Amino acid sequence: MKLANLAIPIIQAPMAGGITTPELVAAVSNAGALGSLGAGYMTPNEIRIAIKKIKGLTKNPFNVNLFIPEPSHPTPDLFLIQQLLTPFWNELSDTRFEAFHAKPPVFEEQVQVLLEETVPVFSFTFGVPPFSVIENFKTQGSLVYGTATTPEEAKILENSGVDAIVCQGSESGGHRGNFSSHDPLYGLLTLLALTHETVKIPLIAAGGIMNGRTASATFLAGARAVQLGTAFITTTESGANATYKKALLKRPHPETTLTKVFTGKPARAIVNAFVHKLEGHEIPPYPIQHFLTQKLRSLAAEKNRPELMSLWAGQGYPLCRPINAAALIHQIAKEFQV
Amino acid sequence: MKLANLAIPIIQAPMAGGITTPELVAAVSNAGALGSLGAGYMTPNEIRIAIKKIKGLTKNPFNVNLFIPEPSHPTPDLFLIQQLLTPFWNELSDTRFEAFHAKPPVFEEQVQVLLEETVPVFSFTFGVPPFSVIENFKTQGSLVYGTATTPEEAKILENSGVDAIVCQGSESGGHRGNFSSHDPLYGLLTLLALTHETVKIPLIAAGGIMNGRTASATFLAGARAVQLGTAFITTTESGANATYKKALLKRPHPETTLTKVFTGKPARAIVNAFVHKLEGHEIPPYPIQHFLTQKLRSLAAEKNRPELMSLWAGQGYPLCRPINAAALIHQIAKEFQV
Repeated sequence: MKLANLAIPIIQAPMAGGITTPELVAAVSNAGALGSLGAGYMTPNEIRIAIKKIKGLTKNPFNVNLFIPEPSHPTPDLFLIQQLLTPFWNELSDTRFEAFHAKPPVFEEQVQVLLEETVPVFSFTFGVPPFSVIENFKTQGSLVYGTATTPEEAKILENSGVDAIVCQGSESGGHRGNFSSHDPLYGLLTLLALTHETVKIPLIAAGGIMNGRTASATFLAGARAVQLGTAFITTTESGANATYKKALLKRPHPETTLTKVFTGKPARAIVNAFVHKLEGHEIPPYPIQHFLTQKLRSLAAEKNRPELMSLWAGQGYPLCRPINAAALIHQIAKEFQV
Repeated sequence: MKLANLAIPIIQAPMAGGITTPELVAAVSNAGALGSLGAGYMTPNEIRIAIKKIKGLTKNPFNVNLFIPEPSHPTPDLFLIQQLLTPFWNELSDTRFEAFHAKPPVFEEQVQVLLEETVPVFSFTFGVPPFSVIENFKTQGSLVYGTATTPEEAKILENSGVDAIVCQGSESGGHRGNFSSHDPLYGLLTLLALTHETVKIPLIAAGGIMNGRTASATFLAGARAVQLGTAFITTTESGANATYKKALLKRPHPETTLTKVFTGKPARAIVNAFVHKLEGHEIPPYPIQHFLTQKLRSLAAEKNRPELMSLWAGQGYPLCRPINAAALIHQIAKEFQV
């Protein structure tokens, strides 16, 4: 089996946007599970600093995740969307609405840092990197994991030479990882059943898993490990803002929905005023909408306004526990039934 | 535990529309699982005849399922939808397009027959019947199962006095059973995890389950039995038309989608020309669209035109087996891992 040599078959999902602090990654790896740095939005230099920090905090394997770049879109007319966003902006700031025109970090430069620093596991989302990239990591002795949302995507990943595949069910929080043009939104159990018939390499189950009982169910269904994102957001070491953590733990629990309103790419978040207001309007494609709303969302976080934040959450988020990462891992492992 | 006293904890789902023949129901019950008559669309007299036939074929428990009636809608202007359907009709028939204006059978009359004939299990979908209905069945010694798509619906059902709850995941084929105004489309595993924390009565897992491995996974996740629909459509005893069975077994496997185009109510079916043509247009509410397309769909079935049929299918349908019902049940039971 080509998974990292883990004492506990739990992977903390690589969530981008500052949640996966080096402290969280190292705490998870030190507990015998696999910590993951969500480095998709990070500059090469930020990645280098984070990797060095993680290595200073743990001797155990860890994972760094990057986003496969997508074909860029011509910027559409942003007048209407800015009209929609401006009232929210004005609630948060006295300055004029800031439409960012930032560019995502360059994938090749991010890869270069990972190869220079060496990482035990390299994982990626939103596509398949060139063959040479996968080959270079494997030559260095890194394990390589890809992300699939359908059995067909899993087959493409297996053919690309990855060591294991994260099967992302429709239940999962944050961005959909699909790289085919269409996403049929397979529920996790069915995705595992169909993918298990399609590929031979190890499968990692992701989507809605919050406890050992559900994790064990995915092991029976063919997974060799589980990847949990939402469950780690409310841990002590997570870099999630306090307002975000509170929104996950608060009762009653509003529904989640898959929406493009925050970034231009479908992602699962708790339904809030921002979703209600923008859903149904034409949304610019990723990453344009991401940069357009980024500053607004971080202002909302600073000002404790959850109704204007992107509250990424899997469908299982009502089971979040406020706890430190090691305790969470040990509790889940204690709940295992197989 | 208040499930029927089953040798094998498998329930054949009550699919309406002629699939669940008395022969299928009895074959399943004779094999030690629970057969279900999908009687939602049947007249009281048809139901009586079917129940008598089932009782002649098996001494074991079986289930009869009814639809809870929904608030009726004023009939909208049907001009546009008839414009869309007419070209399909003309491909299938030389007569003028027939817009049915049938009414669904009367729920109270259906219930009366079930109470007169007595049934071991009464189950229902799309809502919650009046308290007196549930009470009358329980007084007779029938078990009563309701259908939920969210933990909140499950709580309402538990409070109504049912004996067990079918938890329908987003993976399942055919109609969504939700009776709240909104359907957050929980994947089965997460629905089980959250519902298990919410109610105390036994849960039955439904949605995408096609084999013993996946069934076992739901047992670990808290289910006491599994309900399989799609897997039984391709059995010898199923009343599904040959074109429908062939569409489920044919390779490669097109995707499924949740769509209102066939009946006016969201249901999962294999994507075909009918879906492509009507998706995105305004569709009259259930049951108006159901009756509007019913004759067209049955003509398409007669004429071997799967692209114009409602090919209900769960996300796991690529794992369908052409086999008799008893053999399917025994194979699945042999695959159980817990």
